[in-house]
Amino acid sequence: MSSIPSTAPREAAQFIKDRVRTIDDWPQPGVQFRDITPVLQDRRALRTLIDLFVQRYIDAKLDAIAGLDARGFIIGPILAYELSLGFVPIRKKGKLPYRTLAESYELEYASATVEIHEDAVKPGDRVVIVDDLVATGGTMMAGTRLLKRLGATVVEAAAIIDLPDLGGSALLREGGVPLYTVCEFAGH
Amino acid sequence: MSSIPSTAPREAAQFIKDRVRTIDDWPQPGVQFRDITPVLQDRRALRTLIDLFVQRYIDAKLDAIAGLDARGFIIGPILAYELSLGFVPIRKKGKLPYRTLAESYELEYASATVEIHEDAVKPGDRVVIVDDLVATGGTMMAGTRLLKRLGATVVEAAAIIDLPDLGGSALLREGGVPLYTVCEFAGH
Repeated sequence: MSSIPSTAPREAAQFIKDRVRTIDDWPQPGVQFRDITPVLQDRRALRTLIDLFVQRYIDAKLDAIAGLDARGFIIGPILAYELSLGFVPIRKKGKLPYRTLAESYELEYASATVEIHEDAVKPGDRVVIVDDLVATGGTMMAGTRLLKRLGATVVEAAAIIDLPDLGGSALLREGGVPLYTVCEFAGH
Repeated sequence: MSSIPSTAPREAAQFIKDRVRTIDDWPQPGVQFRDITPVLQDRRALRTLIDLFVQRYIDAKLDAIAGLDARGFIIGPILAYELSLGFVPIRKKGKLPYRTLAESYELEYASATVEIHEDAVKPGDRVVIVDDLVATGGTMMAGTRLLKRLGATVVEAAAIIDLPDLGGSALLREGGVPLYTVCEFAGH
């Protein structure tokens, strides 16, 4: 994808960023939550957002889009449909009914587990993994490990928002997974 | 939408139904779980599925698609994008960060609550509400009540699968909300 710019076309990205709503002290004091629902609710913003991803991956010869439960389910399936690919859900533990692989990751005071169906991708499949936002990168890294255990190549991780101060994009880069985001916010 | 057939074109619907995987005794003994992930993972099936919904609503003059957390997030946003509409997430309690309205519904031995952002739709908006499957119809009815409280018109509820023996489609019909599904399975 060397011919594709590594940042979103600036005007479209700003249009999206301007519509992200910041909620102070949610879900806990001191956190500024970045709420994407105004982007989703605005038909023009939703198309602009998806078109950025479609343009980025149209020549990437992908086999599937994987999305992380639950906000990654909003963007990922649109992209899969638009690129005529399959969509692979990666879900919180206990939500997928068929045979699964699981990966755990650390949260601040606990751990969490995500799962994938073992028939979700085939060895050699080229996959982009999608979520709404990258903070510490724990979920995205766990999802990437699941895809790699099934033999897939994770071409890139993609999200609407990067919070680079929380270290997720650096963690992904160190793990060999480039991250593409439409916009970023300082702080957390 | 009187010019639109009330069932999916038969061949496409059968193509989808054939790819729904039945998991016996999940999540509990005696339940046959209908797993849509093989439909989502198959690029041809995903396009066929979405195209049925697009054809159905292309002339319906909708303003938004609402989707229910979490599997309704997979189909709803694609439809919103394809029809150039906004997407409104209806989420389990405590997941939406802005000001919300809430509606509860009964489960077998408990109750559950879903929420919507109070700015999600405007009075008079024409909305289709989407989930993956209709069983007892409790979530879909609660979501419909939320949209109506915000002044929207719920044109129709839509899902991939109806389990008519569980009574949800009848409940919705009695509540004045027609239900469109691509296929149905007897039993539960």
